[in-house]
Amino acid sequence: MTGEHGGGKPDGVGSATPLAILCGAGAFPLQVATDARRAGRAPFLIGVVGVSEAGIQAYPHVWLRMGEVGKLFAALKERAIGEMVIVGAMSRPDFADLRLDWGAVKRAGELAQLFRRGDNALLVGLAAIIEREGVHIVGAHEIAPRLVAPVGPFGVRDVSPDDEADIAFGRDLLEALSRFDAGQAAVVGGGRALAIEAAEGTDAMLARVADMRAGGRARRKGPAGVLVKAPKRGQDLRLDMPAIGPDTIRGAARADLRGVAIAAGCVLVVERERCAREADAAGLFIYGFRS
Amino acid sequence: MTGEHGGGKPDGVGSATPLAILCGAGAFPLQVATDARRAGRAPFLIGVVGVSEAGIQAYPHVWLRMGEVGKLFAALKERAIGEMVIVGAMSRPDFADLRLDWGAVKRAGELAQLFRRGDNALLVGLAAIIEREGVHIVGAHEIAPRLVAPVGPFGVRDVSPDDEADIAFGRDLLEALSRFDAGQAAVVGGGRALAIEAAEGTDAMLARVADMRAGGRARRKGPAGVLVKAPKRGQDLRLDMPAIGPDTIRGAARADLRGVAIAAGCVLVVERERCAREADAAGLFIYGFRS
Repeated sequence: MTGEHGGGKPDGVGSATPLAILCGAGAFPLQVATDARRAGRAPFLIGVVGVSEAGIQAYPHVWLRMGEVGKLFAALKERAIGEMVIVGAMSRPDFADLRLDWGAVKRAGELAQLFRRGDNALLVGLAAIIEREGVHIVGAHEIAPRLVAPVGPFGVRDVSPDDEADIAFGRDLLEALSRFDAGQAAVVGGGRALAIEAAEGTDAMLARVADMRAGGRARRKGPAGVLVKAPKRGQDLRLDMPAIGPDTIRGAARADLRGVAIAAGCVLVVERERCAREADAAGLFIYGFRS
Repeated sequence: MTGEHGGGKPDGVGSATPLAILCGAGAFPLQVATDARRAGRAPFLIGVVGVSEAGIQAYPHVWLRMGEVGKLFAALKERAIGEMVIVGAMSRPDFADLRLDWGAVKRAGELAQLFRRGDNALLVGLAAIIEREGVHIVGAHEIAPRLVAPVGPFGVRDVSPDDEADIAFGRDLLEALSRFDAGQAAVVGGGRALAIEAAEGTDAMLARVADMRAGGRARRKGPAGVLVKAPKRGQDLRLDMPAIGPDTIRGAARADLRGVAIAAGCVLVVERERCAREADAAGLFIYGFRS
């Protein structure tokens, strides 16, 4: 995005406070790294083999396999890093698939316990293990506030009163589901829940709505329905902030929705300008509701 | 199922009380017709073009298109039928696709209003229109109680304490969703919601879980997870009783679940013996929980 050239050396050594970025999939971790640098921080990227993009190599970085907890803590200690951001999509591994190093084996009982729980509970537990090592976890939204959804429409379309009713219905539904630590998204059209997200993820849910409409279920003439996305109540935004990006907009367009509504201040927007441009071209709204 | 041969003539004329059966898709309406006859009723089947099975022609019957409300009431009046059962799967049509006859056009405003609402609200409204014409709607479970899920396991497998915990989680989740008039089913595994049904239907939800497991999401070694199915709270069982059948068992087997749990007394089981046989063969339990 900028003309920066990363390398093997930390930049601003001595002056910039280091910040570890645990990189999930996609380009988003790199955007956070860019913003962190702009804000005068020295980003150190932690890549997960098979998950993170190769582009993280433009920054000082280390590669880990899932489960290499000891290696993670050693890398942080070596660089005296006291803060970490967790960002980007990461699908939940099976505990049995983790590559446990000695640092993980020491904590295996605790880890195994956590993997029996819901996604949110798992993340909260992992964060507690990290913070016990003296590494404070900060939110991507604190480091890169421009990446968070603003209030109101962005792009040219605004919401109608019918859309507002669907959005309110979706918010209520997600609120009711919160305590089950399930999905963060639903598709609502004409006052009906067309799809509710659980473990499949938002993109798969949107593909399902597209199929249903093509196949005669939930079929309507013309665009109908809104994707509503918001964090679970009480969800720690530092650990798992819902996100949308150009893929979400394309999925919503294929499902012939009227738009995408997200909780302002609580949902990350990957490539905001491109999202707005694609939404405008597809005739969709993107709307940040006050949460 | 029995050696009965249907025909154009009502059987037991003069003695048997007539009973209309509005036939959705599948073999289930015919099972209800068989049971109704055994119970001394004279079934009169109402086929919906493109929905009901051709087999309904073994009974006194009439064929209608969706929206032929006037023709429905005329057929019932002509035969002095005062009771009707609604049974079998029926996917929700678009209001614009209904073939409105004069009896429907007279009620078009009311019908259009109903079609803006959730599935349950739509059914309640349609039932009110039918009962206003002096036709009492009875539940399939009242006519054919042997078709309803019993309490406890049927088939050879029983539930484990882990399964019981997943079932309790699923029941709570469905209860919380009730007021949104959304799905009647969810898949829960290891204390997590893997899939939640909305407009796509139970079979599509099970196919999704099978895909997720094949694709690495919600992946586990060996069978895991339970399909939990129950009516919405306050749902009128005469109008829309959840149902499972051999297709459900096959879908659960493909999703590599541990079993299927249904609300005893409140869920219809199509071809119960075949369900139990297929579940046994696939190593699944089918369990009726007290509701």
